[in-house]
Amino acid sequence: MNRFFSKTCHRLIPYVPGEQPEIGQFIKLNTNENPYPPAPGVAEVLSTVAPALLRLYPDPTAKDLRTAIAAHYGVQQNEVFVGNGSDEVLAFVFQAFFGSEDAIAFPDITYSFYPVYANLYNIPYTTVPLTNAWAVDLSVYPKPLKGIVLANPNAPTGLTLSPEVIEEALKKRPDTLFVVDEAYVDFGGASVIPLVHSYSNLLVVKTMSKSRAFAGMRVGYAVGQSDLLEGIIRVKDSFNSYPLDIIAQKAATASFQDTPYFEQRRQQVIETRERFVQSLNEIGLSVLPSKANFVFVSKPGFDGTAILSYLRENGVLVRHFQKPRLAPWVRVTIGTDSQMSEVVDLLKKWV
Amino acid sequence: MNRFFSKTCHRLIPYVPGEQPEIGQFIKLNTNENPYPPAPGVAEVLSTVAPALLRLYPDPTAKDLRTAIAAHYGVQQNEVFVGNGSDEVLAFVFQAFFGSEDAIAFPDITYSFYPVYANLYNIPYTTVPLTNAWAVDLSVYPKPLKGIVLANPNAPTGLTLSPEVIEEALKKRPDTLFVVDEAYVDFGGASVIPLVHSYSNLLVVKTMSKSRAFAGMRVGYAVGQSDLLEGIIRVKDSFNSYPLDIIAQKAATASFQDTPYFEQRRQQVIETRERFVQSLNEIGLSVLPSKANFVFVSKPGFDGTAILSYLRENGVLVRHFQKPRLAPWVRVTIGTDSQMSEVVDLLKKWV
Repeated sequence: MNRFFSKTCHRLIPYVPGEQPEIGQFIKLNTNENPYPPAPGVAEVLSTVAPALLRLYPDPTAKDLRTAIAAHYGVQQNEVFVGNGSDEVLAFVFQAFFGSEDAIAFPDITYSFYPVYANLYNIPYTTVPLTNAWAVDLSVYPKPLKGIVLANPNAPTGLTLSPEVIEEALKKRPDTLFVVDEAYVDFGGASVIPLVHSYSNLLVVKTMSKSRAFAGMRVGYAVGQSDLLEGIIRVKDSFNSYPLDIIAQKAATASFQDTPYFEQRRQQVIETRERFVQSLNEIGLSVLPSKANFVFVSKPGFDGTAILSYLRENGVLVRHFQKPRLAPWVRVTIGTDSQMSEVVDLLKKWV
Repeated sequence: MNRFFSKTCHRLIPYVPGEQPEIGQFIKLNTNENPYPPAPGVAEVLSTVAPALLRLYPDPTAKDLRTAIAAHYGVQQNEVFVGNGSDEVLAFVFQAFFGSEDAIAFPDITYSFYPVYANLYNIPYTTVPLTNAWAVDLSVYPKPLKGIVLANPNAPTGLTLSPEVIEEALKKRPDTLFVVDEAYVDFGGASVIPLVHSYSNLLVVKTMSKSRAFAGMRVGYAVGQSDLLEGIIRVKDSFNSYPLDIIAQKAATASFQDTPYFEQRRQQVIETRERFVQSLNEIGLSVLPSKANFVFVSKPGFDGTAILSYLRENGVLVRHFQKPRLAPWVRVTIGTDSQMSEVVDLLKKWV
């Protein structure tokens, strides 16, 4: 390692994202992207934005975008924070609320960026095993905790917790901040955003990457009580005053202004998923009950890498995770109907 | 403060950027933006990019953009790191190389984000006063230091250090990492990027916001030896895998592919600055010798807020800084020739 690396830099174990191959080579079902384009209003923004606007700094508070998001959820604009993808928002959240003197916890199987953030900011963390049925059981989390971080639906399993279960935990642990990462909730889960006004210990983080087909545009947001968000704003304003460029702000606003398109596209993904799961069950594969835009698939007795390699040889990318309990499984993103039919046909031959 | 704020969050004193008023209301000379639009190729990217591309994650390493930047400077692409504005790049640099066990230094008068980063990452820092002639004197910096951070040209004074002076310091302090922030160097300063291959203790940070009219697009970069950049990459991959969206990557690449346009526009700004400085001298105002796209102006015996208020009442925004030594001064960004003539006419009346 270079002699100038800081102590923090020495201890880092960076996150490794899914592979981004050359477009066109593969059916790409490995990083939970949306198979459909973003709302038509987004295309309109790109084709009409004045390039001369780029010479000016963007609105550092992204007020128009926050207003559009707030209107969508029926909250106030000062209850919405936006950032450069939900990864950046989560990084700010970890630094704003947790430190080396705090203890936090999250499931042993969840979004693998959480331990990376904890490590980046030197935050002691405990991982709590999922149950045998792959569920998050909040009753077994240690006490006291400054924070609990939950992906809901969880990744890469796709299983959800109901808002009732989360609300019970919010009541039982008023001194624990619950960070609920709803990256995938629009595909059939139930959001806890309606609970934000009642619970000062709840912060919801969302991304536009999945359900709004914005992975390439990098926009994420958090919804919570305004004095809680103030902490995230303090970190952001000590890091980068302008995390969202002018075009991202305008394009994201256009997406939030077209709810019918959003509803139609997410329903399409949900319906494709349900058909895909039924087909996989029919050919004898195990599938966890997913409310996300991906499913976790295995064939008992086989390693997931066998499925991954077979699909890759046949032009389909999926994702495998190197953890003992996850070894038999692969995560398959829900694409279009015709893409998923192709995967089903391939898996029929393999089985 | 909210009960969930971390210790870090408690101690933060965020950076305050210059005012971003409604466009059209003012001649905006307060945040060092470029008066001209970005290269024509950028407009072409915006009008031809396929919106469907947005559904896919961008290249996390921004290879095409790094290749274009590397070609411009005659370095290798693994000697270039790109991020979401040079503010993000600087934040990564502070965290990658400096920590609570290190000592760093920078001038007492310089870009006011440096102490904010130091505070964010709990890095002990010393500020070293500029000389009476507003110069950075590296011979008076304390020893030992893990890092020295220099804006060259310095802000908000506009004064430069020559590459020879910086090279001498690089030799004298081989165990000190020099972070040279060349945000404004394209307006007449001399870059130290040619020294990068010879000195492992040099890291150059640049922004596209000023000389490439990209403030609204948020693209910054660092140039240094590849094993040094590896530290910044580790921090970035522990924070946000994809800091630059697809459109920013493509637009920035287009800018670097049009060197004649870049040369023409920066010459225009330089010529306007020289004419403006001459006019100010003629009406008896003090102006520091600037190699940036701004000048630092005062009238002995008057507080800078007097100039600021007068110009604001007449539709021109400039910037004033609340530090004792800076109190008499205002910083005026170089706009178009006609904008600067208007400012000269207004100041003539005021004087």
